[in-house]
Amino acid sequence: MTKAVKEHITNFADLAEDERLDSLPRDGLFIIQSAKHFAYCTDSLLLADFVRLRNRAGQRLLDLCSGNGVIPLCLAKRYPAEILGVEVQEKAVSMAQRSFAINDLSERLVMHQMNLKDAPQAFGHDQFDAITCNPPYFTLADHPIAHHDLGQARARHEIDMTLSDIFLVSRILLKTRGKLFMVHRPERLQELMRLSAAYHFGLERLRFVYPKLDANSNMVLLEWIKGGGQKGSKILPPLVIYEGNQTWTAEARQIFHG
Amino acid sequence: MTKAVKEHITNFADLAEDERLDSLPRDGLFIIQSAKHFAYCTDSLLLADFVRLRNRAGQRLLDLCSGNGVIPLCLAKRYPAEILGVEVQEKAVSMAQRSFAINDLSERLVMHQMNLKDAPQAFGHDQFDAITCNPPYFTLADHPIAHHDLGQARARHEIDMTLSDIFLVSRILLKTRGKLFMVHRPERLQELMRLSAAYHFGLERLRFVYPKLDANSNMVLLEWIKGGGQKGSKILPPLVIYEGNQTWTAEARQIFHG
Repeated sequence: MTKAVKEHITNFADLAEDERLDSLPRDGLFIIQSAKHFAYCTDSLLLADFVRLRNRAGQRLLDLCSGNGVIPLCLAKRYPAEILGVEVQEKAVSMAQRSFAINDLSERLVMHQMNLKDAPQAFGHDQFDAITCNPPYFTLADHPIAHHDLGQARARHEIDMTLSDIFLVSRILLKTRGKLFMVHRPERLQELMRLSAAYHFGLERLRFVYPKLDANSNMVLLEWIKGGGQKGSKILPPLVIYEGNQTWTAEARQIFHG
Repeated sequence: MTKAVKEHITNFADLAEDERLDSLPRDGLFIIQSAKHFAYCTDSLLLADFVRLRNRAGQRLLDLCSGNGVIPLCLAKRYPAEILGVEVQEKAVSMAQRSFAINDLSERLVMHQMNLKDAPQAFGHDQFDAITCNPPYFTLADHPIAHHDLGQARARHEIDMTLSDIFLVSRILLKTRGKLFMVHRPERLQELMRLSAAYHFGLERLRFVYPKLDANSNMVLLEWIKGGGQKGSKILPPLVIYEGNQTWTAEARQIFHG
């Protein structure tokens, strides 16, 4: 965007001192970020890319642990759906709402400030066609909190909820055969499998993300179906991010930049 | 090998009409195969390559669903261990025992004919440092038997045992912190996770095998530790078999041919 356009939008977005305006080039959107409190990471872009939904109108999607709303923003241009977000932190909710507004998406995208454990009471059961979630990766037991900023700590550690809560809440909120999409760390694969099975989610698709072709995977993308999974799981081709010296692979470039 | 050497070994191996002598070039060994009843597949070579053990003497290994003994043969040259095999079919056991003999490995490698469900009674508990298993991949419920040959059907379908039996038996036979190595189909990943957790195996390492870099995975290699897995699972780099037009990748060539 030109400097003039950016200035205009920046004024409109009512940015706080710690905030900045970034772009989501693949979808041609703007997003308000704060290096201090909330900035999306590529994990969310990978999850949004991994989502596969039928392209029909009238679907309702929900993004849990939504942060500054990067996943609803990415999905908005790709699916003609109503997209709700749930985020516990007021600061992030404010950034998301203003990002929805500056992209003229406030009619279809709505961010709710609440603990996701309260979402079933707020929304009712069997309400959504799909749920996405880029949750905090770290348990309090295994990873003592090292962040000085409580906002960052709550985004990275299971302070407000646990992995089990996500499956419980998704189980209630999703329609039968509804889809749950998640990004997480491979270290917790066994726990992800155990919990999802306990809540009767069928594992449908997985994709492992490798920083390089000869490196261990550092991320896994998962799709479950509520009550489903009769045909067994599919492992998609490896998603490799870098080739050679910090150059994105063609696929990573397409996901991040379009 | 020269024609004369092959003739000499063939006579010594006392081959039946359906049998032939093949080589395992990476380890410089011979193996008796039968196209009609039992021939090892590359899955077993991948599993043998995936095995990681400390290189110390005195270890005892067990190979379940051992077929014609290809995994004990591969491991014999790599680890100074006593290796037992368990195979239910008499024909396969006979081929394995003769293969061990022609490679002069009968002192360290022993094949037992029994249903693996009888192995705990035969061997006792807490006996082995590691167990390997390339099991039948197909459940009877999902895959009606299509093979005319009962031997092949028993090697491919869960006729004599189920996946659950493997974890139960391994749980008994392994020492505490002993390792279980398995190759299986990704379709059954969720079941593999559920059963292994039920028998208190910690998932330590996984490696997904992709026929090509842009194809879905068709095989998964897994390592569990009895009672272990505190640190979480590691997903090793993708193992890609072919590049371009049916040419092995460098790594696949190394695994299959040395």
